[in-house]
Amino acid sequence: MQKDKVISQQVIKRLPRYYSHLGYLLETGVVRVSSMELANQMNLTASQIRQDLNHFGCFGQQGYGYNVHVLRDEISKILGLGSSYNMIIIGAGNLGQALANYNSFKSMGFNIRAIFDVDPQICGRQINKCVVRHIDELESFTSDFNIDIAVLTLKSKDCQEMADRLAALKTKAIWNFASFDLRVPPNIAVEDVHLSDSLMMLSYAITRNNNA
Amino acid sequence: MQKDKVISQQVIKRLPRYYSHLGYLLETGVVRVSSMELANQMNLTASQIRQDLNHFGCFGQQGYGYNVHVLRDEISKILGLGSSYNMIIIGAGNLGQALANYNSFKSMGFNIRAIFDVDPQICGRQINKCVVRHIDELESFTSDFNIDIAVLTLKSKDCQEMADRLAALKTKAIWNFASFDLRVPPNIAVEDVHLSDSLMMLSYAITRNNNA
Repeated sequence: MQKDKVISQQVIKRLPRYYSHLGYLLETGVVRVSSMELANQMNLTASQIRQDLNHFGCFGQQGYGYNVHVLRDEISKILGLGSSYNMIIIGAGNLGQALANYNSFKSMGFNIRAIFDVDPQICGRQINKCVVRHIDELESFTSDFNIDIAVLTLKSKDCQEMADRLAALKTKAIWNFASFDLRVPPNIAVEDVHLSDSLMMLSYAITRNNNA
Repeated sequence: MQKDKVISQQVIKRLPRYYSHLGYLLETGVVRVSSMELANQMNLTASQIRQDLNHFGCFGQQGYGYNVHVLRDEISKILGLGSSYNMIIIGAGNLGQALANYNSFKSMGFNIRAIFDVDPQICGRQINKCVVRHIDELESFTSDFNIDIAVLTLKSKDCQEMADRLAALKTKAIWNFASFDLRVPPNIAVEDVHLSDSLMMLSYAITRNNNA
C-alpha cells in the first residue's frame, strides 16, 4: 500500500462496495475475477477499477485477473477491518435498541461497550446483554477505555450538545442517525445515516408514480 | 405545486433534509425563519433554498420569511407523507427484526404488514405483533393488498431473485439494506441503505488517523 499518496474520497467510498461485492463472489464460489467482469457486475468501468485498486498496490495479474480472496483481504486491511473497535450507543429508544440487538456489527469487530439514555424507565434494562446506563455516567463509565465509535440516535435538538461532550472525551468517530448536521473538530470522523430520509424518498417516488 | 415542471433529483433529495430541519425548528419553538437563517443552519445558500422551494410554489414572504409550520406541511405533502403505505420485510435476521421493532416508521405512515423468512426456526415467531411467515407464502399472503415498500434484508446472493419476484408482484418500491446493486424495472423505486459501508468508512478513518 502506497501510504504517502493522497487517495480521493471517491475512491475510498468505493472500497466498502468492492469489499461487499468480493464477499458476494466468494459466497457464490467465484475465486478469480477480471477487472472487466467486476466492471460489468458493479456498473463501473474496467479502467476505473484498475485505477482504484492501483492506488493501494497492484493486485491484479495480466491474463489472470484478481484473486478474489486475496483482493478482499487486502481491502479489508485498508478499511481497518480485523481490528476491534469500542462502540457506545447514545439513546436507547427504538432505533438504539434495534442497533444494540444487531449482532452483525460484533462479527465485524465493532463491540458495543455501553448504551446510555436519559429515561429512568429505560435505564437499568438489559439490551442484548448490555445494561442501559444513565447518560450522567457517560464520562465515568468510559474513563477506562477509548471510545472509537459513538452511535448517536438522539433527537436532533440534543445532538450537538452530545457531540461536543463526545469530542471532549476524544471520541474518534460518530455514527450519526439523527437528521442533524453535526459540527465536530476535524479529527472526528462522522458518517450520517438518515433512515427516514431514504424512506421519504420512497414515499415521494410512490406518490409521484401514483399521480403520473 | 407546479406539477408539470421537471424537478431535478438534487432538489428532491434535499426535501427530506428541509422536512427534518423544519421539524427540529418546531421542536425548539421556532415559528418563522428566513432563507438566510435556514441557509446558515443547513450549510446551504439562501438563493439555493429560495430556488429549491420555488419549484413547489412560493411559500416565503418578503420581509417575513417562511412560516415553519406551513412550509413543513407543504413539504410533507410533496413527499407523500400523511398517506399510509403497506410495507413488508423480507428477511427476519438481526436487521430485519431490528427494523420490525422500530416503531417510528409506523408513526410516519409506514405499516409493516408482514415479515418473511426461509428459516423454519424463525417462521411462526412473533416480532412486534407480526408473525414471521415462510417466504413461500409471499404471493398468497400479499394477494389482497398492494406492496408499497418491500424492505430487503437478505444476503446479497439472494437479493436479485427476490427483487424479480417483488417486481412480478407489482411492488412499488424497494428499501434495500443488502450491499448489492439491484436491477429492477424503471417503475420500481429503490433506495439503498448500506449500514456496513458507513461503518467501514468509520473504521477506515479511525485506522488512518491512528497511523497518522
